Amino acid sequence: MKLLIFAASHRPESVNRKLAKLAAAHVVAQNIDVDFAEYSEFDMPIYNDEIARSGVPDIAQSFAHRASKADGIVICSPEYNWSYPGSLKNIIDWTSRLKPNRLAGKTALLMSATPGSRGGIIGLNHLKTPLEALQLFVFPKVFPLGYTEQAFDAEHCLSDKKQRESFLSMLDDYILFTRKLCAP
Amino acid sequence: MKLLIFAASHRPESVNRKLAKLAAAHVVAQNIDVDFAEYSEFDMPIYNDEIARSGVPDIAQSFAHRASKADGIVICSPEYNWSYPGSLKNIIDWTSRLKPNRLAGKTALLMSATPGSRGGIIGLNHLKTPLEALQLFVFPKVFPLGYTEQAFDAEHCLSDKKQRESFLSMLDDYILFTRKLCAP
Amino acid sequence: MKLLIFAASHRPESVNRKLAKLAAAHVVAQNIDVDFAEYSEFDMPIYNDEIARSGVPDIAQSFAHRASKADGIVICSPEYNWSYPGSLKNIIDWTSRLKPNRLAGKTALLMSATPGSRGGIIGLNHLKTPLEALQLFVFPKVFPLGYTEQAFDAEHCLSDKKQRESFLSMLDDYILFTRKLCAP
Amino acid sequence: MKLLIFAASHRPESVNRKLAKLAAAHVVAQNIDVDFAEYSEFDMPIYNDEIARSGVPDIAQSFAHRASKADGIVICSPEYNWSYPGSLKNIIDWTSRLKPNRLAGKTALLMSATPGSRGGIIGLNHLKTPLEALQLFVFPKVFPLGYTEQAFDAEHCLSDKKQRESFLSMLDDYILFTRKLCAP
Repeated sequence: MKLLIFAASHRPESVNRKLAKLAAAHVVAQNIDVDFAEYSEFDMPIYNDEIARSGVPDIAQSFAHRASKADGIVICSPEYNWSYPGSLKNIIDWTSRLKPNRLAGKTALLMSATPGSRGGIIGLNHLKTPLEALQLFVFPKVFPLGYTEQAFDAEHCLSDKKQRESFLSMLDDYILFTRKLCAP
Repeated sequence: MKLLIFAASHRPESVNRKLAKLAAAHVVAQNIDVDFAEYSEFDMPIYNDEIARSGVPDIAQSFAHRASKADGIVICSPEYNWSYPGSLKNIIDWTSRLKPNRLAGKTALLMSATPGSRGGIIGLNHLKTPLEALQLFVFPKVFPLGYTEQAFDAEHCLSDKKQRESFLSMLDDYILFTRKLCAP
Repeated sequence: MKLLIFAASHRPESVNRKLAKLAAAHVVAQNIDVDFAEYSEFDMPIYNDEIARSGVPDIAQSFAHRASKADGIVICSPEYNWSYPGSLKNIIDWTSRLKPNRLAGKTALLMSATPGSRGGIIGLNHLKTPLEALQLFVFPKVFPLGYTEQAFDAEHCLSDKKQRESFLSMLDDYILFTRKLCAP
Repeated sequence: MKLLIFAASHRPESVNRKLAKLAAAHVVAQNIDVDFAEYSEFDMPIYNDEIARSGVPDIAQSFAHRASKADGIVICSPEYNWSYPGSLKNIIDWTSRLKPNRLAGKTALLMSATPGSRGGIIGLNHLKTPLEALQLFVFPKVFPLGYTEQAFDAEHCLSDKKQRESFLSMLDDYILFTRKLCAP
C-alpha cells in the first residue's frame, strides 16, 4: 500500500505540515509506503476555463500522476474563511480535467490544524464534497486539531494523551479502510 | 446604490457571463450603478501563506477596492466538482488578508448556470459560507439555472416565462435587501 | 420590535436554555419585547406526509402564530450527531405546510452550546439551510459556545470577558439587522 | 449480505417508496437478502433529551435491531425545505443513544426523488453528515431523481435509459463497496 501525504500550507513551520509529518511517521512505521509532498511542489496557475480547453498544466499532471501511484491521499489543510484553501480546490479543478479520472477509487483522509477551538471542522466538512465528486472514498472520520499552540510537545508529538490515541486509532482505521477498498 | 457584478468564468461566451449581463441590464434599468467586471481582471497568483506575510498582490487590492466602492456583489459562478471554483475562493482568501475588512457589511447575491439539471445548487450553497465569514450579508435565495443550452432565447433573455419572472423578482428583492441593509 | 426566543432542549437545566435566557435578558434590557418559549410548548407529532394532506396539528399552528407575531426568532440549539435536532426540523416541516408562509421575511439568530470544543458549529451551519428555505433572513454570524461546564459564572453570565463581549455585540448587531430588514 | 431498505415517506404511492422498491428488486435479483421496511414501522415519539435519560423507545430499539442485522442501509428520502425530513433525523437521534452503537461500520446508500429539477440533492448532501457521525460508511455517489412525474414507465421502471443504467451501476458499485467494507 502507498499513501500520498501533504499539508496545504507553504510555511515550513506550519502546524498542518507538522501534523502531516506525524501521520507519515505512523504510516511508515507500519511498513506502508509514503510519498510525502511539499505543497510548493503543487504550485500551479489559477484554473482558467478558457485555457483548460487546450490542456492541463504540467504540475497538475504531475500531481495526478503521484496521486495515481498511491492508494490513498492524506490531506492536512488549514481553514481559511470557514472553508478550505482556494489553492486546494484549484488543484482539484485542474485534476478533474484529466480523462480518465486518475483519482477514482482512491481513498482520502482529512485533517486540519488551527490556532482556535474548532480545528477547522467546517473546512473539512466542505472539502469532502469535491473529493467525492472526483470519486474518492473519503474516510468519514476527520481530525480537526484546535489550539495548536499547546497541541505539540517537544518531540513534535501530540501532547494530550487522549488526543494522541484518537489520532493513531483513526490512522489505523483509515489504513484498514484503504486496504479493504483498494489495496490487497 | 452601486453593485459589482461578475461571472467567475474566463470564457467570453460563458453562460454564467450571459446571466451576469442579464442581471446587470435589469439593475441598470432601475437607475442603480453597475460596475461590471470581467473575471480576467481578477487573475491573481495562488494564495501562499508564506508570501502573504509580506503583503497582498495588487490585483487582490484592486478587487477589494472595487468591492468596497459597491454596496453589494452579484456573483454568477460555474460549479466544478460539486463546488464553486477554487479561483473564486482564492480571491476571497487574498481579500481576507486586508485589514480592515473591505467587504464587511456588503450584501451578496449568488447565481449559477450549468448545462445539467441542478444548476450548480451545491456550489452556491457552499459559496455562502466563506462570504459570510467575510461578514457579507448573503441573500438567502440563490438562482441555479440548469439546462443552459435551452435557457436563453435569441435576445439573450431567459426563454421560460416563469423562470424569467422568478429571476427578475429575485433581483428586485435583492435590491430592496441591499437598500435596507447598507444603502440609503 | 418583538423576538421569539427558545432553546431546542427539554431539560430545565439545559445550557442551551441558559444561553437563550441570557440572550432574552439582554434583549429585554433594550426595551424590545420577548416571547420566551419553553421547547415543550412546541411538542408536536412526527411529520407524516400522508396525514399532512388533511391538515397541520394545532401545536404547529400555534408555533407559526407566535412566530408570525415576532420580527425575529432566536434559536439556541444543541447539536446531535453533527447536526441540529430532528425535533427542530420537524417543527420546520410542519410549519412549512401552512399557506401563506408565516415566517417569510422574519430574521433568525442561531446559537448553540455543547460540552465539547466545537460548540455545535456544524449543526448551526446546517440549520441555516431549511430556515432560508422558509424565507427567513438568517443572521450570518452564529454563536457556538463550547466547554459549557466552565462557560457560566455564578450569576449565570458568560465567565470569559472576551466571549461575553462578543456575545453581546453579536446580539446588538442582530437587533440592528432585524430593525433594518423588518421592523420600523 | 443483507440490506435494510426503506423510503422516508408515509404515502403508499410515494415516488420515494417506488424508487426504494426498484432498488430492492435489483438487489434481490443478485441473491442478496433485503429487509424492506415501511416508514410507518419506524414511527416513534419526538426525541426529548429529558426523557432520553431514562431510556429509548421500543420502536427506536427495533429500528436499531433491524439495522444491526443488515450490512448496509438504503434510504430513499424526500427533500423538505432544502433538507431531509426531521422524522429521519429523529430516528437517528434516538438510535444514537443506544450503547454500543448498533450502526457503526455499516454502509449507507442515499437516494431521493422530487417533482422538481434538483432531485433533492441538497437534502442528500446534508443527510450524509449525521450518518457519518454514527460511523456509517456513506457511499459517495447519491441518486437524486428529479421530475418524478415523467420518471417512471408503466412497469414502474425508470423510463430514461441513461438514468436507468446509471441507477443500476450505482447499486452494483454500492454492493461491491459494502462487500469490501463489511460483508464477506
